[in-house]
Amino acid sequence: MNGAESLVRTLIANDIDTCFANPGTSEMHFVAALDRVPGIRCALALFEGVATGAADGYARIAGKPAATLLHCGPGLANGLSNLHNARRARVPVVNIVGDHATYHRALDAPLTSDVEGWARPVSAWCRTSTRVELVGRDARDAVQAARAAPGAIATLVLPSDVCWNDGGQVAGRAEIPLPSEASPDAIETAARILRYGEQVALLLAGPCLRAAALADAHRIAAATGARLLAPTANARIERGLGRHPVERIPYAIDLALSALKGISRLILVGAPEPVGFFAYPGKPGRMLPPDAQVHVLSRPEQDGPQALARLADALAAPAVREPRAGERPTAPRGAITSETVGLTLAAVMPENAIIVDESVSFGRSFYSATRDASPHDWLQLTGGAIGEGLPLATGAAIAAPDRRVITMQADGSALYTVQALWTQARERLNVTTVILSNRKYAVLLGELANVGANPGRTALDMLDIGNPDLDWPAIANGFGIEAARATKLEQLRDLLSQSATRAGPFVIELAIG
Amino acid sequence: MNGAESLVRTLIANDIDTCFANPGTSEMHFVAALDRVPGIRCALALFEGVATGAADGYARIAGKPAATLLHCGPGLANGLSNLHNARRARVPVVNIVGDHATYHRALDAPLTSDVEGWARPVSAWCRTSTRVELVGRDARDAVQAARAAPGAIATLVLPSDVCWNDGGQVAGRAEIPLPSEASPDAIETAARILRYGEQVALLLAGPCLRAAALADAHRIAAATGARLLAPTANARIERGLGRHPVERIPYAIDLALSALKGISRLILVGAPEPVGFFAYPGKPGRMLPPDAQVHVLSRPEQDGPQALARLADALAAPAVREPRAGERPTAPRGAITSETVGLTLAAVMPENAIIVDESVSFGRSFYSATRDASPHDWLQLTGGAIGEGLPLATGAAIAAPDRRVITMQADGSALYTVQALWTQARERLNVTTVILSNRKYAVLLGELANVGANPGRTALDMLDIGNPDLDWPAIANGFGIEAARATKLEQLRDLLSQSATRAGPFVIELAIG
Repeated sequence: MNGAESLVRTLIANDIDTCFANPGTSEMHFVAALDRVPGIRCALALFEGVATGAADGYARIAGKPAATLLHCGPGLANGLSNLHNARRARVPVVNIVGDHATYHRALDAPLTSDVEGWARPVSAWCRTSTRVELVGRDARDAVQAARAAPGAIATLVLPSDVCWNDGGQVAGRAEIPLPSEASPDAIETAARILRYGEQVALLLAGPCLRAAALADAHRIAAATGARLLAPTANARIERGLGRHPVERIPYAIDLALSALKGISRLILVGAPEPVGFFAYPGKPGRMLPPDAQVHVLSRPEQDGPQALARLADALAAPAVREPRAGERPTAPRGAITSETVGLTLAAVMPENAIIVDESVSFGRSFYSATRDASPHDWLQLTGGAIGEGLPLATGAAIAAPDRRVITMQADGSALYTVQALWTQARERLNVTTVILSNRKYAVLLGELANVGANPGRTALDMLDIGNPDLDWPAIANGFGIEAARATKLEQLRDLLSQSATRAGPFVIELAIG
Repeated sequence: MNGAESLVRTLIANDIDTCFANPGTSEMHFVAALDRVPGIRCALALFEGVATGAADGYARIAGKPAATLLHCGPGLANGLSNLHNARRARVPVVNIVGDHATYHRALDAPLTSDVEGWARPVSAWCRTSTRVELVGRDARDAVQAARAAPGAIATLVLPSDVCWNDGGQVAGRAEIPLPSEASPDAIETAARILRYGEQVALLLAGPCLRAAALADAHRIAAATGARLLAPTANARIERGLGRHPVERIPYAIDLALSALKGISRLILVGAPEPVGFFAYPGKPGRMLPPDAQVHVLSRPEQDGPQALARLADALAAPAVREPRAGERPTAPRGAITSETVGLTLAAVMPENAIIVDESVSFGRSFYSATRDASPHDWLQLTGGAIGEGLPLATGAAIAAPDRRVITMQADGSALYTVQALWTQARERLNVTTVILSNRKYAVLLGELANVGANPGRTALDMLDIGNPDLDWPAIANGFGIEAARATKLEQLRDLLSQSATRAGPFVIELAIG
């Protein structure tokens, strides 16, 4: 057995059943082994950022890692931006990068690069396999490192000779350690603060934003009057009718400061302290009031949901009722605004949908407008590196073939990884993409105004992506996906609900001004 | 004056007049300063790999650096692959990356990343400006580092606060050191080898592939019988009728070995020793015969053209005649093959065209078929990181608005940075792109066969980019460019020559099987 086959067999033994691939010459033995040994679904990406973003989306929904397959340093580099987002999402990814044969590196051939140097900033674990008999062990260790709570990127670099040499040894199943428990002290301190403190808030992140954990958080809130908050951007929130809602800290710095105003004690549950997305002249970087105190109930690598349950019990907080039986909004008519588009989405999204939100500036009302939609998951861009919406949706749809994925996608951001549309077409994924087409980097026009500039032609040209206008139906058709343009809210509603009931992907360009 | 303005004024003082930009929030002060201070043409890219690849193409033709403008670590990451290629091309690039405010980094906001860590593997020089009054000096140093022979990537990281703070100081013009001269010893040794050695070859790279240097190399060859060779991939070769040709080492390992067979002494002129692009089981990595000796006439940072001239003089080599007055080929008829497509290109390319060759597997005959075309420049992918053809052409066209750029582009590779088409449309660049559409990663099918695999469905699916087929005219139209499909050689000829006589970009999808 060669090294590549020992790799594939070890991955399968470790429950890896999906690989997002953009292979090159040095990965041909891996490709051949994937062919020979059934058990891994391979989805081809036309660009590496699609593969890594899809691995992120897959992990968020499947709760376990996919493998990637990337080609040498430059292939890895093309995938780094979405690995950065995946790292911020704290999801597991087994990131496999093929490279030159061990003895070829020293020759400095054209593709030679510092693979590990590029991988390390996004990887909790990074290793280059140096001998064929170690490939299986290294693959097992990579899975283990990726799955250690809360989830991380493990990068395994595979020189081509360790893949093609004979002597591969399949490694068994990695032991995945359970997340550690929050300390009794942390529970007790939090309980005391909640009992006696005023203006207390809990900031919930990661798995604490799943339905069961949110129910426990609401027990605590009901019993103590504490506020519940989530960070601005999150990997996955379970929400919708019948689930307990959670408010997110707004993105805009002034709104964020005002949302956190008055908090005197903040209890972190798997979340970092809230800081500004960017610095702005004369505005604070830390968003809590200066005299607020910060406490940690659980760290990201600890079991946050369990800590919430223990805390609720420590407070003797009674179970809370199902949240009020609201009603699904009906689709509004009239002007296309963030609010009306959000309500349209809420009205037509099917049961158990997955919403991928990379709506950037236009979508600021989408979250609140969809609170009473059917139960659904809400996935966001966690690392601020735009260009993950289409890949995230691709990976989520592969993880959950029976659910509809709806991507609310800003046009400028969509362009970074537009190649994902082709993978959606090839894999016939149930994804509806709504391109929010305003033909500008609207978020930057706001930021430019913030810096007090009165923009002239040069500046406007750098923030305007019209001239020429992008023709999204043409682009989608070019990548093999049916598409339509909506200029009215009613068209959006009809296209959204029609696309949700048929198999395969669909793209809607929504003109938003 | 704020730091951003001191940056722009310093760049202008240092002859930087072009900036390929994909800015974000942290670069708004730079954008505002570019707006306020005229003198730099800003070309917007919809993806960072387009910006960096265009900076590479610009430098190859302009002979001086452009600036880039990228947004934080992930924006840089998206541009790394083409910076890798630019580094291998040894061209100057002033790579500017905006980042969080100095004091904001410690807060680990979502976009925070290891910017310098990612930049260093491709950068000869990398610095983060730490104080507003140093921005001008740092920008000057960056230009100096980029322009030091033979040319390199200088990465300047600009935290947003050093840009917006007041107190910027414009720095003057950087002194650009001339390339050092080859040592008299090296000239003398080379002359001796050429006089008395047998089976001697010169391997010419970088500026030695420009017309005047090639003429000197031909003097040497004519006087001594030495062979002249160029590496497989080169930043720019001046060639065509009336210029002295040079043979390139083939890409395919067996052809390369056979091309170099029999060489007993190789003299390197700005070139590295030839090594295989990849390692293959049972094949050597070094491509010279094992007993061949290698000598260095000049290193890449030395003045190679001058060394060639001195060497020719030392050999008392007479001037050589203009190469034989050949005739431009006429466009062939018949089947679409690498040879006939190359001859069609040779027949119709206008005077002084710039050919960008990212034709990968199909284009193996293009170079030889175009030897007797009108004088032109030949630009190639130097670092093996596919996805630079469209950006290279974009930058070259901006550097030479009066010349026609023709990109011979493999379809799979085109998809990595397809967004470049939009910049070509917006800037109304004179670029004709021929998409060589075979709907597969043909090069990898060959490599898979090389590893002895008998591919099944999984492997074929990973190397096949049909299903669905990409509709290139639709994609091009979507990005704002007119396009047509050619299925016959005559159509290619007509579309190529028509597009060459009209202003603006055009895309031709050529079905090649």
